[in-house]
Amino acid sequence: MISRLAAFRRILHRFVRLQSTCPPKFPCVDAHQARESRILASFTSAPAYTPNSQPDTGPEPPYARPNPASYSLYRHSTPFSLIYSKNPLPSFELAYETWGTLSPKKDNAILLHTGLSASSHAASTPSNPSPGWWESFIGPGKALDTNQFYIICTNVLGGCYGSTGPSTLEPISQTPWATRFPVLSIFDMVQAQFHLLDNLGIEKLYASVGSSMGGMQSLAAGWLHPSRVGKVVSISGTARSSPSAIAMRYAQRSVLMADPNWNKGFYYDALPPHTGMKLARQIATITYRSGPEWEQRFGRRLRPLPDNTDASESGPRTPALCPDFLIETYLDHQGESFCLKYDANSLIYISKAMDLFDMTLPALQELGLSPSTPPIASSFSPPSPEAEAAKKPYAIPIPQTPLSLGLKPLSKTPMLILSSQSDILFPPEQQREVFEALKAAGNKHVRYYELGGVWGHDTFLIDVEGVGGAVRGFL
Amino acid sequence: MISRLAAFRRILHRFVRLQSTCPPKFPCVDAHQARESRILASFTSAPAYTPNSQPDTGPEPPYARPNPASYSLYRHSTPFSLIYSKNPLPSFELAYETWGTLSPKKDNAILLHTGLSASSHAASTPSNPSPGWWESFIGPGKALDTNQFYIICTNVLGGCYGSTGPSTLEPISQTPWATRFPVLSIFDMVQAQFHLLDNLGIEKLYASVGSSMGGMQSLAAGWLHPSRVGKVVSISGTARSSPSAIAMRYAQRSVLMADPNWNKGFYYDALPPHTGMKLARQIATITYRSGPEWEQRFGRRLRPLPDNTDASESGPRTPALCPDFLIETYLDHQGESFCLKYDANSLIYISKAMDLFDMTLPALQELGLSPSTPPIASSFSPPSPEAEAAKKPYAIPIPQTPLSLGLKPLSKTPMLILSSQSDILFPPEQQREVFEALKAAGNKHVRYYELGGVWGHDTFLIDVEGVGGAVRGFL
Repeated sequence: MISRLAAFRRILHRFVRLQSTCPPKFPCVDAHQARESRILASFTSAPAYTPNSQPDTGPEPPYARPNPASYSLYRHSTPFSLIYSKNPLPSFELAYETWGTLSPKKDNAILLHTGLSASSHAASTPSNPSPGWWESFIGPGKALDTNQFYIICTNVLGGCYGSTGPSTLEPISQTPWATRFPVLSIFDMVQAQFHLLDNLGIEKLYASVGSSMGGMQSLAAGWLHPSRVGKVVSISGTARSSPSAIAMRYAQRSVLMADPNWNKGFYYDALPPHTGMKLARQIATITYRSGPEWEQRFGRRLRPLPDNTDASESGPRTPALCPDFLIETYLDHQGESFCLKYDANSLIYISKAMDLFDMTLPALQELGLSPSTPPIASSFSPPSPEAEAAKKPYAIPIPQTPLSLGLKPLSKTPMLILSSQSDILFPPEQQREVFEALKAAGNKHVRYYELGGVWGHDTFLIDVEGVGGAVRGFL
Repeated sequence: MISRLAAFRRILHRFVRLQSTCPPKFPCVDAHQARESRILASFTSAPAYTPNSQPDTGPEPPYARPNPASYSLYRHSTPFSLIYSKNPLPSFELAYETWGTLSPKKDNAILLHTGLSASSHAASTPSNPSPGWWESFIGPGKALDTNQFYIICTNVLGGCYGSTGPSTLEPISQTPWATRFPVLSIFDMVQAQFHLLDNLGIEKLYASVGSSMGGMQSLAAGWLHPSRVGKVVSISGTARSSPSAIAMRYAQRSVLMADPNWNKGFYYDALPPHTGMKLARQIATITYRSGPEWEQRFGRRLRPLPDNTDASESGPRTPALCPDFLIETYLDHQGESFCLKYDANSLIYISKAMDLFDMTLPALQELGLSPSTPPIASSFSPPSPEAEAAKKPYAIPIPQTPLSLGLKPLSKTPMLILSSQSDILFPPEQQREVFEALKAAGNKHVRYYELGGVWGHDTFLIDVEGVGGAVRGFL
């Protein structure tokens, strides 16, 4: 009996040895090395990198190839104060694009604010006919109707698509700012945009419209300049980032900053942190979509096997440790297609600006912020409950919150707040909170819609009927 | 005017130069290097690594220091068939601990199943007095009452706390299996545990109890051996992993496998992928807790500044790109304290096994699985609707789903399904689905409770009153 067992073991061990001679394969890991080889090959074949059209000696990061012919550039050549930095930015540039025609009275302009990683290319233009990130929402008869309005969209300050950001050359050293770039606030980004509006001679916006981070910016624009913003639309935004959202963006920054290629931000003359960017985008994608959509779209289905797979093998398919479920290949693809398109430092700075965004009164006071327009600014200091009660002795006072007190400067502006029920990054509770705070602040012209559907945070990019219809109706 | 501007710029540039001479600091990035130095130092000072008490020449991975004196070991020395592998495991070992006393009839045993990364140390024992992962739930008068029951908990097959897994030596090469280890199924893990029960002479369990992955195992145990499991408790588990849960575990595996130290799994004679493990744990922590808890516990508060910070500086505090919000420092700490405690390959294999878990009928049929016990197994093939209708001509047939058909073997077992409303990893909808499927399968003895609270998936570790009370009442 023992000898039969020993014989069996010998046979078994031969199997194991056979297995040992074939090292396990990990195409998902080899992909990082393969990408690196492709980037290195492009260094020798491509012309030298010129971030923002300025000369540089390093190799070309393939993620930043802005085409200066496809957008307009606003140059601000005097120092620009920043909220969190003792030193102002010596100067800055903003890339922007426009659609429609500015009326002779310059009273039909809509400033459109982007999400984290978008460029100024919201829709196709004669000089750049490729579709923009809000292509279906901008044009004649669309949500932002170019027959009626003049739409302006900028690449945000801190971005990498033509506007000044960490990849821009610092003027003294003539090397990219990298992480010497100052930490930005959403309010800084909006102030930079108002310098562009000054330059265009636009005294008052017909409306400020934005989604995701742009929804934050849209609120900030109306708050900073109550008399210069006619209407405010905030889609899938928030008035203060929640710890959950901070956690999810922190996870992205962590994987990015742990990539040795990131090199504390100084990678512009070397390989970019493409692996960290891929991993960060995979995490981001999880927060942009929703479980119900994936359940419908992918379920538990597996990727199709390559044609050369031996289908005659018996037993269940051997699972791979690399992507095997369709949901995994989807995330892998999203990361792969983004990782060389965007500057890693821009991602870090802009996602940090989103985390820092907080419109509650104590937070605004700590930043020393106040709206630009004196008449409304004077009403910014919260009225005492006694004074309020004296005015309307029989009315029940609406309870004020730190947020409603902070949003007081928006109390006269017609506003639309739109949220998506399946959004896990900016959940509807946060946007209901903005709506309630605006009402408590005395705003009688604020509308709130909650959209159904399964698209999560990305609803604002997909739901042309729901989002577009609400925006069009409101404007 | 121009010369005054030029003078201003000169002063400004001096500021910028001063700034440039101080390179930006990133303690959160330096931490990875510091950790690596500590590990390398431990290699020279500590005795050689002996995974599962077997000799090895490599340096000691500090995450795997099982103390064989603190648990019992079951040795299975004959080949063990696996669901996804053509080759059986030549042999395996399971580490286990017990609490209470086995009755003379051996009819009071409860098999307790762990979550992904837990050891067999569910509660303190004389040989290991440190608190276990379910310390508050096990003991005299507690949820698992040791005055009444004999509790058995194993380190799962594939784990790294004494049981056979990727860090165990492969018998032929006498080197760790690493990623030559076969892909595991939850059903394999449970079958290994039943071999231990056979060895202990336990024919029938009083109950099978588990939470998280253990909730899956508990269902699998009752399904595989309907006549050997008296009752089933599944807490914060599921009967089929959703694409969302797969996505979140995929993100963790991705960051881990991208760590160069992971080296396709062959790191046992070198530095472990400690950075990848930290990043993976940070992501996991996001899925284990919930937004409402963080809102209460951390809100938007910042970490306290070090004592040497100049508080006299004017203006708002300059934000850091490294952890600054308390929620960030919390995630950082969770990652840091875990990254050397657990084997990276165990994490990959066990999280993959969770992804693969699916108790719908088509999935079970594809694996060729059937319950062990003939009487109930024969009722496994779904009865035709006509046959059902013939039995009760006036009853409205309950609509069957792929899951209710799959769960048929559990139709006679008294069961308790517990979920947490704030769980985003195993959301209550999934557990309601299990409950409904069991009822549709004809189970008249299944209870379902949904727990409130803000602890998310980790409710099963924290809510002694809610979870413990329900379990005790059911048993």
